[in-house]
Amino acid sequence: MAYNLLKGKRGLIFGALNDKSIAWKIAEKVCEEGANIVLTNTPVSIRMGEIDRLAEKCGTIVIPADATDVEELENLVEKGRAHLNGNFDFVLHSIGMSPNVRKGRTYDDLDYGLLSKTLDISAISFHKILQICRKLDAINRWGSVVALSYVAAQRTLYGYNDMADAKALLESIARSFGYIYGREKNIRINTVSQSPTMTTAGSGIMGFDNLMDFTDRMSPLGNATAEECADYVITLFSDLTRKITMQNLYHDGGYSSMGMSFRAMKIYNEGLEYRDVKNDKSKVEKQ
Amino acid sequence: MAYNLLKGKRGLIFGALNDKSIAWKIAEKVCEEGANIVLTNTPVSIRMGEIDRLAEKCGTIVIPADATDVEELENLVEKGRAHLNGNFDFVLHSIGMSPNVRKGRTYDDLDYGLLSKTLDISAISFHKILQICRKLDAINRWGSVVALSYVAAQRTLYGYNDMADAKALLESIARSFGYIYGREKNIRINTVSQSPTMTTAGSGIMGFDNLMDFTDRMSPLGNATAEECADYVITLFSDLTRKITMQNLYHDGGYSSMGMSFRAMKIYNEGLEYRDVKNDKSKVEKQ
Amino acid sequence: MAYNLLKGKRGLIFGALNDKSIAWKIAEKVCEEGANIVLTNTPVSIRMGEIDRLAEKCGTIVIPADATDVEELENLVEKGRAHLNGNFDFVLHSIGMSPNVRKGRTYDDLDYGLLSKTLDISAISFHKILQICRKLDAINRWGSVVALSYVAAQRTLYGYNDMADAKALLESIARSFGYIYGREKNIRINTVSQSPTMTTAGSGIMGFDNLMDFTDRMSPLGNATAEECADYVITLFSDLTRKITMQNLYHDGGYSSMGMSFRAMKIYNEGLEYRDVKNDKSKVEKQ
Amino acid sequence: MAYNLLKGKRGLIFGALNDKSIAWKIAEKVCEEGANIVLTNTPVSIRMGEIDRLAEKCGTIVIPADATDVEELENLVEKGRAHLNGNFDFVLHSIGMSPNVRKGRTYDDLDYGLLSKTLDISAISFHKILQICRKLDAINRWGSVVALSYVAAQRTLYGYNDMADAKALLESIARSFGYIYGREKNIRINTVSQSPTMTTAGSGIMGFDNLMDFTDRMSPLGNATAEECADYVITLFSDLTRKITMQNLYHDGGYSSMGMSFRAMKIYNEGLEYRDVKNDKSKVEKQ
Repeated sequence: MAYNLLKGKRGLIFGALNDKSIAWKIAEKVCEEGANIVLTNTPVSIRMGEIDRLAEKCGTIVIPADATDVEELENLVEKGRAHLNGNFDFVLHSIGMSPNVRKGRTYDDLDYGLLSKTLDISAISFHKILQICRKLDAINRWGSVVALSYVAAQRTLYGYNDMADAKALLESIARSFGYIYGREKNIRINTVSQSPTMTTAGSGIMGFDNLMDFTDRMSPLGNATAEECADYVITLFSDLTRKITMQNLYHDGGYSSMGMSFRAMKIYNEGLEYRDVKNDKSKVEKQ
Repeated sequence: MAYNLLKGKRGLIFGALNDKSIAWKIAEKVCEEGANIVLTNTPVSIRMGEIDRLAEKCGTIVIPADATDVEELENLVEKGRAHLNGNFDFVLHSIGMSPNVRKGRTYDDLDYGLLSKTLDISAISFHKILQICRKLDAINRWGSVVALSYVAAQRTLYGYNDMADAKALLESIARSFGYIYGREKNIRINTVSQSPTMTTAGSGIMGFDNLMDFTDRMSPLGNATAEECADYVITLFSDLTRKITMQNLYHDGGYSSMGMSFRAMKIYNEGLEYRDVKNDKSKVEKQ
Repeated sequence: MAYNLLKGKRGLIFGALNDKSIAWKIAEKVCEEGANIVLTNTPVSIRMGEIDRLAEKCGTIVIPADATDVEELENLVEKGRAHLNGNFDFVLHSIGMSPNVRKGRTYDDLDYGLLSKTLDISAISFHKILQICRKLDAINRWGSVVALSYVAAQRTLYGYNDMADAKALLESIARSFGYIYGREKNIRINTVSQSPTMTTAGSGIMGFDNLMDFTDRMSPLGNATAEECADYVITLFSDLTRKITMQNLYHDGGYSSMGMSFRAMKIYNEGLEYRDVKNDKSKVEKQ
Repeated sequence: MAYNLLKGKRGLIFGALNDKSIAWKIAEKVCEEGANIVLTNTPVSIRMGEIDRLAEKCGTIVIPADATDVEELENLVEKGRAHLNGNFDFVLHSIGMSPNVRKGRTYDDLDYGLLSKTLDISAISFHKILQICRKLDAINRWGSVVALSYVAAQRTLYGYNDMADAKALLESIARSFGYIYGREKNIRINTVSQSPTMTTAGSGIMGFDNLMDFTDRMSPLGNATAEECADYVITLFSDLTRKITMQNLYHDGGYSSMGMSFRAMKIYNEGLEYRDVKNDKSKVEKQ
């Protein structure tokens, strides 16, 4: 069901890889709601993924750009608004990658060159996009900017590594730039802290499915899906949320406000029980 | 502009007094968006205010109820859903009053009988509404409940008195019941922490206009108005925000994430300057 | 090892029942650090527990008082400072009880009379103590007041019931009164959010040992014990923390900043595995 | 007054420039409390400041090191523990600098090379110190690490620029590494979010004295001084706070929990009044 919430609006969407991507779902949804968009991703992601299929579906183009490269971003912004015949009303940042994680460097053995890359790709790229948009005056008054984040910015999860720091930096940039762009152009900037989601990125993380099982059982409404995230983000791009800014908004089925649910504790209890069973068995076998 | 975001939905709205009330603006807006509602307030507020005019405008009825009285609430819920021919899809709680403030009792001289009333009216009423709705199974699956709150729940403001504690309690109730109603019926419960708003309640507070000036200059987007709050709340009642629950959502133009803005500091600096000017003058006069 | 951190200071300690109580450990420790104290609890708790033994150990008296009763509190404060020959330098509030929990009323079936009692005993008593101390000018300039809280004030735990709301209210009272008592007398007021602790109160909660196992494995330093809490609280009563006020301070081995630890996830994974094992077995048996 | 809180402990102190530095006050205080320390700073800061005088006072040496340089840090750690005849029990990180601020680049016109330097100097240096200490096993079990932070990590202040993002990153690193170092060696890592302080760094910021006036009037206990910060930090280095980790601890006289104080609002009101006076005057003059 569509509401024409974004009728006549123009948007720029970073980070759609394939139909599992949250950015993909958001792109589909904003188009259903009447927006015209331009898609972008790095050349590598464009090759690896299926963004061209999404562009076709949305009747638009893909403009390749490395979001850490100021010149490529300038080119993107110029070409993007030329294609749309006007400035952007909304921008989505859904970009994150840790070369330290890829190379198997743990958090107590970080390579600092790779850490710089993690921060540059996953957080500073957001500042670059905002600074360039502002310099080129490329976002309309009362526009809305959203970046996707994760609760790791507040609470440490083993294995999430330097991406946690990148998300904390990303959320800080949203606040810092939100002040400037808000007072000047009434443009709002928020981050959405989404449930763990089984995207291509997520599915590569070891033990991710079990973590998702945990957060699902912890959350009274269960994990939020990519589709549901898209539903939520269109409200943030619409004219109905004009006074929300500099916020980190949890879209997680209630997870962030849970200490312990009955359902999650039940599994944990069975884990303790199983351990006892196995211990007893091994004691018996040893006799 | 309307989007049919709430087409076919039924709602229960507490707390509309007159056309300055946030609940009033929300009532108008949910009707524009296609919902059918029932209005309620205490008999005194109904007499003092103009809620009948609102009911006429929305083509509905007003059912009087004291939100601290379980039996009256039961009667309200039963009559309300009978009138609407179905259960509620959303509920708004916009109720707050401190008899200590009214009687001029400061926070270090509270009357504990009156404190109980403050908490009962402003916070426990929310639990009563939820408990009764749940017992009578009066809210549909995937329904949405919102209560209006204020940043005083997190940060102390002189003069806000025991209402700060009431708001902290209100927000806790939203979380506690959000877990229960979420896991059982997928019903979400959130609080909206709204900018100071010039309602009848607000305008009675001494120095409120100057405080509003401060928060307005602190917020990059300025204070959020009652109308803007209504816009926001309809997104929370819509099907687009189904996985947001147990959250306190700041709708405040960015105020809650500000440490100091240039504009607010300017006025403060002038206050310091003025003090110096006056001090110099009084020194001269004393000579 | 003692440091004379509280040499010459006078204190008032609420809530010691037996040697498992956190308040008991704090009482012992403040005496080791050179303070003179007065102990208090309700007549029932005095009878049920062993506080007289503690009084003997600390060379002091027990003054019975119901912390919800203003007159008894006034009597306590007057007698307490008479016994100590001076005003208090620190006060500990370690009081919490939910009659709803005791009566087996779940959070969606609260008795509102009992809810009032929960709030009165566990939170409003703190305001009463503060208001009376202030009226009687019973706390010295630069004094320190601590109340014990729990993370349930921020995150919902199944079964913790209306105590979560009471803790949220308690923490709000600390902030609200902290402003007043701070600006007037430089008295600081904080809450310590302690790990779940195997006190007499805690051990009565069903499944509490498994919850403690979970938080222990989640916390990089493990759960904080009652003794460790006492160590921490003496720093808050000392002159070294004079500018800390209106804070909720987590003393929990890092739990509050954890999303997921490797150790806790391991048990959870075994729970999932066990479930699979049992499912397979039951499938085999059904064949 | 000294308590021997740190008797026999060894520490490493980064960031003392001159006797206005917070790190300077902390160094003095830890020595008074019985610790032996090693001091370090960059060669430039050593030349510009008076750290040699501090070293003399504390009976120790200064080992120059650029905290962004891994090799220099390794050398520092090795020489430092050799000098102290043992591993460190505590480490203080008090380092922050923004080349963007120095070059007058505003937040909407950042130089990204300089941003990398801001982050490297002010935040990533903390990770480097921790990673190196861990690799060289240079911190004793139950050791304590503190980094100094500022509320700008949570709330935007105009003019604080990319230092806000650096502080957010710093606090995230404290959490991320706190998990690892905690579970492995029981080493705790916290940040102290200190009131604005009139150090050499602070005094260079335009309008800093007026901001300090504001926060002083907002805080019920007034701004915390550098000396008071030193008092607080020794409690965090002592054995009394062993289960506090991964926390950001506000040491700010209550500022962080204030919405508005009477005293600060009074000045603001006078600023509004002055504006009116000046407006009236200019109207009169125009007639």
